[in-house]
Amino acid sequence: MNATLIYEGKAKKVFATENPGQVLVEFKDDATAFNGQKKGQIAGKGVINAKISTHLFRLLESHNIMTHFVDQPSERVLLVKRLRMVPLEVVVRNIVAGSLKQRTGLAEGTSLAFPVVEFYFKNDELGDPLLNDDHIRAMNLASSDLTSRLKHEARHINDILQNYLNDRGLLLVDFKLEFGMADGVLQLGDEISPDTCRLWDRSSGKKLDKDRFRQD
Amino acid sequence: MNATLIYEGKAKKVFATENPGQVLVEFKDDATAFNGQKKGQIAGKGVINAKISTHLFRLLESHNIMTHFVDQPSERVLLVKRLRMVPLEVVVRNIVAGSLKQRTGLAEGTSLAFPVVEFYFKNDELGDPLLNDDHIRAMNLASSDLTSRLKHEARHINDILQNYLNDRGLLLVDFKLEFGMADGVLQLGDEISPDTCRLWDRSSGKKLDKDRFRQD
Repeated sequence: MNATLIYEGKAKKVFATENPGQVLVEFKDDATAFNGQKKGQIAGKGVINAKISTHLFRLLESHNIMTHFVDQPSERVLLVKRLRMVPLEVVVRNIVAGSLKQRTGLAEGTSLAFPVVEFYFKNDELGDPLLNDDHIRAMNLASSDLTSRLKHEARHINDILQNYLNDRGLLLVDFKLEFGMADGVLQLGDEISPDTCRLWDRSSGKKLDKDRFRQD
Repeated sequence: MNATLIYEGKAKKVFATENPGQVLVEFKDDATAFNGQKKGQIAGKGVINAKISTHLFRLLESHNIMTHFVDQPSERVLLVKRLRMVPLEVVVRNIVAGSLKQRTGLAEGTSLAFPVVEFYFKNDELGDPLLNDDHIRAMNLASSDLTSRLKHEARHINDILQNYLNDRGLLLVDFKLEFGMADGVLQLGDEISPDTCRLWDRSSGKKLDKDRFRQD
């Protein structure tokens, strides 16, 4: 693209547009895991993730969830609203996997009695540590009100995605969301794709997500 | 002592008494840090910790905090009520130190705007991981009600200890509490000593706690 690059992350490039309130997000084929310690390329990953994100953002919008999604101008590019990001990763978990196994000692695959919401501080240098509500308030990352709204919004999004995927034979094990503000309104940002979700095939239990890359 | 040993931990031995509702706790001189990876002996530590714990349990009792403390029958032994323990360490922090520095990136010595309460899962094998309220409920470690009561009780104890120590030229940086139930009533258990608190001299900033051992 001929646009001005304003940010390049592990999996995405962000470009300015003529509208200061909107940016273009290009999904790369680069794959990273373990906070960037494992790297690779998966041909077509960017295109697939852009397509899935677009599809799921449209699904959420149709259920009255505010998202940053505006349009998909090309196969690996999304046009989105520019958000002032909340520096938290909001993780929702329905089934035990990954770090929740280590943290709790519960076996992988254990169904949780209710969706567990976690907040991680978006900070590569500190390794994205888990925070509790007191940490978030003491660090001035979000008010108690905003923290409650993030939890509520994340659970609502989980309900929608879980129903949708379940009807298609997929178990939504867990996923990560990032939120931001535009015009004073909280909106869902970032992406929703196999890079940010754990998805298991409901009948075979086969992993259809980034764990396939993490586990070679 | 001639009593039956029912438990030996890193810093304490617990003996049965003729009363099934009470146990004797002997404070050892053994010092450990980093989850038992560093070990040593500090002559007289057990006696001092028993004395300080007794003093602070009596202080808290005089402020209507329920504790397991019954009596101090000898210089390194406390007679306490036998509690059914909540498997959580409740940490209260007034000033940034230790793991909170790593977790938040805030500088050591930063005063927090309000006391931050943290819960850690008492599980040596898992390394006593931080838990949030959802984890605690999903793991059935405590109900939401009990979690709220633990936070409230911990903050109340912090107010009492902070005032008391402040008047004596000491800063209560942070401390760890453990609670349990006896006769259906929540009570403070374990100990309150320089092994479980960070205390700094208010004028010199000198560390008067277990960090002196951790940092040789």
